[in-house]
Amino acid sequence: MTAPATTPAHPLLAAHAGVLDEIRQALAERSYYSRYPESPSPRVYGESAAADGLAAHEAHLGRPYAALSGQPTDGTFVGSEVSPYGPALGVTYPAFAVEAGLAAARAAMPAWRDAGPQVRAAVCIEIVDRINQRSFEIANAVMHTSGQPFVMSFQAGGPHAQDRAIEAVAAGLVEQERVPGTVVWEKPGRDREGNPAPTRMQKDYRIVPRGVALVIGCNTFPTWNAYPGIFASLVTGNAVVVKPHPRAVLPLAISVEVARTVLEEAGFDPALVQLAAEADGQGLAKTLAERDEVAIIDYTGGPGFGAWLEQSAAANGKLVYTEKAGINTIVVDSTDDLRGVLGNLAFSLTLYSGQMCTAPQNLYVPADGVATDEGHLSFDEFGDRLAAAISRLTGDDAKAVELLGATVNDQVRANADSLAALAADAEGRVVLDSRRIAHPGWADAVVRAPGLVAVDVAREDIYTQECFGPVGFLIRTSSTEQSLAQLADTVREHGAMTAAVYSTDEKVLDAAREAAAEAGVALSENLTGQIFVNQTAAFSDFHGTGANPAANAAYTDAAFVANRFRVITSRRHVA
Amino acid sequence: MTAPATTPAHPLLAAHAGVLDEIRQALAERSYYSRYPESPSPRVYGESAAADGLAAHEAHLGRPYAALSGQPTDGTFVGSEVSPYGPALGVTYPAFAVEAGLAAARAAMPAWRDAGPQVRAAVCIEIVDRINQRSFEIANAVMHTSGQPFVMSFQAGGPHAQDRAIEAVAAGLVEQERVPGTVVWEKPGRDREGNPAPTRMQKDYRIVPRGVALVIGCNTFPTWNAYPGIFASLVTGNAVVVKPHPRAVLPLAISVEVARTVLEEAGFDPALVQLAAEADGQGLAKTLAERDEVAIIDYTGGPGFGAWLEQSAAANGKLVYTEKAGINTIVVDSTDDLRGVLGNLAFSLTLYSGQMCTAPQNLYVPADGVATDEGHLSFDEFGDRLAAAISRLTGDDAKAVELLGATVNDQVRANADSLAALAADAEGRVVLDSRRIAHPGWADAVVRAPGLVAVDVAREDIYTQECFGPVGFLIRTSSTEQSLAQLADTVREHGAMTAAVYSTDEKVLDAAREAAAEAGVALSENLTGQIFVNQTAAFSDFHGTGANPAANAAYTDAAFVANRFRVITSRRHVA
Repeated sequence: MTAPATTPAHPLLAAHAGVLDEIRQALAERSYYSRYPESPSPRVYGESAAADGLAAHEAHLGRPYAALSGQPTDGTFVGSEVSPYGPALGVTYPAFAVEAGLAAARAAMPAWRDAGPQVRAAVCIEIVDRINQRSFEIANAVMHTSGQPFVMSFQAGGPHAQDRAIEAVAAGLVEQERVPGTVVWEKPGRDREGNPAPTRMQKDYRIVPRGVALVIGCNTFPTWNAYPGIFASLVTGNAVVVKPHPRAVLPLAISVEVARTVLEEAGFDPALVQLAAEADGQGLAKTLAERDEVAIIDYTGGPGFGAWLEQSAAANGKLVYTEKAGINTIVVDSTDDLRGVLGNLAFSLTLYSGQMCTAPQNLYVPADGVATDEGHLSFDEFGDRLAAAISRLTGDDAKAVELLGATVNDQVRANADSLAALAADAEGRVVLDSRRIAHPGWADAVVRAPGLVAVDVAREDIYTQECFGPVGFLIRTSSTEQSLAQLADTVREHGAMTAAVYSTDEKVLDAAREAAAEAGVALSENLTGQIFVNQTAAFSDFHGTGANPAANAAYTDAAFVANRFRVITSRRHVA
Repeated sequence: MTAPATTPAHPLLAAHAGVLDEIRQALAERSYYSRYPESPSPRVYGESAAADGLAAHEAHLGRPYAALSGQPTDGTFVGSEVSPYGPALGVTYPAFAVEAGLAAARAAMPAWRDAGPQVRAAVCIEIVDRINQRSFEIANAVMHTSGQPFVMSFQAGGPHAQDRAIEAVAAGLVEQERVPGTVVWEKPGRDREGNPAPTRMQKDYRIVPRGVALVIGCNTFPTWNAYPGIFASLVTGNAVVVKPHPRAVLPLAISVEVARTVLEEAGFDPALVQLAAEADGQGLAKTLAERDEVAIIDYTGGPGFGAWLEQSAAANGKLVYTEKAGINTIVVDSTDDLRGVLGNLAFSLTLYSGQMCTAPQNLYVPADGVATDEGHLSFDEFGDRLAAAISRLTGDDAKAVELLGATVNDQVRANADSLAALAADAEGRVVLDSRRIAHPGWADAVVRAPGLVAVDVAREDIYTQECFGPVGFLIRTSSTEQSLAQLADTVREHGAMTAAVYSTDEKVLDAAREAAAEAGVALSENLTGQIFVNQTAAFSDFHGTGANPAANAAYTDAAFVANRFRVITSRRHVA
C-alpha cells in the first residue's frame, strides 16, 4: 500500500480535530495551556467523583487485575505492592510473556503506522481524555504506591501528568507533520534544442516507527514520568511496553487498561500498549532492554541502572531517554520579600518530603549573610529563619501530612535519620532535624518533615551526593559569586533538574543566568508566591534540559520526539 | 547577560536575510532547491574559473598549508596524501594540538552562542558562498584525494556538497527558531474574593550548544559527507573540529580555511572551526572521540570504527551520527523501457567505479526472467544485456575514465580482481569481468570498469558482504516476491543507503514500497533517465534513513539537528 498522501478518515479524528489544532498552537507558543483542570473540586469533576474514584480503587485491592488478562501471559499473576501508608495492596497482574508480548507488539505496528500521524494523535487524545475520567481512581493508586499526599497524587498523578501526555502527543504530531506526505520535485533543465525540459519526480515520504518502545516507570511519579515516553512513542507509530516500578504498578495498569480499551474501540490492536508486570527480582527491565525488538527506551529512576541503559542499550543502537538523579541547587543572595522567600522555600522542601527529582537539596548562602527587607541576616540567622518557616508549615501533624505524604522507602528514611551524622561528619550544624510525624489516618506510614544541615562550601564530599528525601544543605560560601560558581561546577559534574536564585541585584540575576546556561540547568528567579521550583508546567517549562548529567532529555522538546520515527522516501518520474 | 529576545544585528544577517527566508521555505517544502549551479561551465562560473582553480590547486602542492598556521599546533607539519591518479600531493598541514585546540574551541563558543541562531546561520551562508567561489580548486583537491573523475569531483565535491551544507544550516536554523526567545505565561486564577488574579511569569528560553563537535571525514566524499555535520553543529552554536581522512585532507583544509577567514571577518573566533590534521597512524579520531570536551561526533567511514564510536562514545553520552556501509539493492521485475533500464543501471554501476556508499551492489532478477518491451529475457539474457550496456558505456578508455575515475585504495582493486574467485566460490558465473583501463592522462591511475557475477539467491554468504567498488551481483531468485523479501531481509540485517525497483506492475511497486518501509531504505522506482539511484538531492531526498544498520542518521531531517543544542529556561514573576 502506498503511503497515504491525505489523512485517513477516522471518527476520533473528526471528534478531536479541534483539539489537535489547539495543541499544535500551544506547543508553538510555549505559553500557558492545560487541557485538564487541576482542581479535585466536586464542582469540576462532579459531586460523586471522589467517592467513585476511591471505590474504584478499593475494588482493585486484594485481587487479580483481570482487565489486562487479554495480554500475552503465561497465566501466572504477579505483584506485591505495599502502600507507603501501610497496607499491602494485594493486587496482582498477569505476568508479561516476553516472547509473545513483543511479537504481538510488532504485529500491531503496521496498521498503526499506516493510520498516519493525525489519526494516531486523535486516538492518543481519546486515551488521555479517558484516563482523565479516572483521575480520582488513579490518584488513590498513585497515593498508595508513591506515598504522595492525596491532593498532590491527584494533581501530579492526574491532570498534570495528563497535560504532559498531551504535550508529548503535540510534539510528536507536529514533528511528523513537518515532513510533507508527497511532493513534486522539478529540476530545471533544457533539451538539446535549448527548450525548457525540467526533470519531474514525485517523492512520497512515509513515516515509519522505530520498533517496540520500552517505558520503565519509577516509584515516586509512576504516571507523570511515564506518560511523556509512552505517548511520544505511541503517536509516532511505535508499540509501547510499559514496565512499571514493582512498587508502583497500579497507576500504570489503569492507564494501560484505558489505552488498550480505546485502541480496540478505535479499530487498532490493543497490543500497541502492554503492561510488563513482573515477579519480584525478575529483572524484567534488563531483559526487555536487551531484546532486539526494543528500539526505544524511556527510563526514570536511579542512576545505576540508568547508566547501564545509557551504556549498553545505547551502544546497541537503541534510543535511550533517561531521567536519573541530580543535586538541585538554590542560591540565596538578597531579597526584598523575606517572608515570601522563606514560605516558598519551606514549601519546596516540605512537599512530598523532598522526594521529588526537582526538590531542592543544596542552598548556597554567603558567609556574610543576606540582605533582606527585614534587615541583614547572618548565615546562621537565615538558616534559623528557614528552619522556623519549615517548622511552622509542618507543625500541625494533621495538616503536615497533607503536604508531606509518606516516605517511600528505607533509603529515604535512612537519609532522614542521618542529619546528626552528616553534621558531625562535615563539622557542620543541624539547623533543623527531620521531625517524625504521626499520620492521623495511617498509623503505619512513616512521615518525616524536612531537616537542614549547615556545612561549609569546602565539604563537597558531603553535599554533592544526592541525599534523596527530607534533607537540605545550607552551604556557607565566601560570596554569591562563589555560590554561583559552585552551582555551575556541581551541576555540570553531578547534574540537576532545577536551580533557583534569590537576589534583588540585576547583576547577580544576570550572572545566575550565565551560570545556569553554563551548567545546563533551568533557573527560577525570586519565587516568593505560589509557583515553586519543584514544579514545571506542561507546554511551557521544559522539564530537565538534557544538558547535564541528571537527564539526557527534556519534556518535551523536538529532540525528545524527532528520532522516534524515520522517513522512508519513494520517488519516481512523473510527467 | 540575558538571552537576547531579539536577533542581534550583524552585517551578514542583513546581507543574507533573504537567503534565510528562501532556505526556511525550501526545507519546509522539500521540493527542488539549489543555491549553487552544478555546471562547471565557464558561462556559469566564469571564463577563467577552471584554470584559476587548477592553478590554486597546484599552488598547494609540495608545500605546507600555511593558511592554517593560526591554529594551535606544536609547530610540526604532517601529511602524506597521494593522488589515486598517481602523484604524491606533498601538502603538509599544521599538526593539531589536542589540548590547546580543544581549549580554544571551548573558549570560542560563548560569543558564538550569544550571537543567536540567525546570525550564526547568516555567517554559515557566507562561509558556504565563499567555499562555492573555490569550487574548481576544491574539485581538483577532491579529484586527487578521492579518485573521482573531474566533473563528478566538481559537482559532488562542490555545488552538491555546498547545497547539503545549506540544507543543514536551514534545518538547524529552523529547529532553533521553533523555540520562542521569550514568552509570558499566564495561568488563570482567582483571589480570595473571587476576582480574576492570574499568575504571570516571563520565561526566557536560551539556546545553548552541546560542546565541541568532531567531524570525521571519509576518503571518497571528503566534503559532501563532512559538510552536513560541520554546518549542523556550527549553526546550532557548537565549535567544530574537522578530522579529515588522512588520504583526503586537502578539500577539508580549504573548507576550514574559508570558514576561519569568514568567522574572523565576521567578528568571531576562528577557533570555532579547526582542522585536526595528524601524522600517519596517530589515531587522532579515537583520541578526540574519547575527550570529554567532545560532545557530538559525525562520522562517515568503515563499519569497524563506526561501531566502536557508536558503542563507546555513545555510551559516554556523546551524540554520534554515523554513516557506515551497506548493501544497496535493486529488484528487477519487468520494464517497458529496457534500453532505459540498462542505460540507467550501467551508469549507476559505472560512476566512480561503484565507490559510492549509494552505488548498487545486489541486483535481484527472477530465474524465469524479465518481461520487457523488447520481449522476454531469461535471467542469463538480462545479465548479458546489462554487461553489454556496461561494456558500451566504458568501451572507450578516454571517455570511460571521465565516468570511472581512479580506484581509491587496494581493497577496491582487490575486489575488482576477485570476480572469478567469487564466481567459483559461489558456483556462479562471471557475466562481465572488471576491465582494466589505461588512463590517457595519468599513467599510474588504476582504473577499473564494473564487473558482474551471477549467483544463486541461496548464496547469501557471498552477496551479503559489502564488496566496495566495481562489483555487482546478479542474484537469481525464484520470483520477484522472493526478490522483495530478500531486499527487506538483507537490508534490515546488513543495511543499505539505497534501493530501487523496476516493474510495470503496480502491485509489484506497491509491494516494493512495503518492503522498503519494512527494511527502512529509500526506494527509487523505474529510473530510466538522467536520475540515478546513487544520487540524492539536497532539501528533497533524505540521504540515508537512519532506519537500517548502514547509517543511524539522515541528511537532513530534524533528528539530525534537534539534539545538537539544548534549551535553558529562566523564569520569573512579572506584573
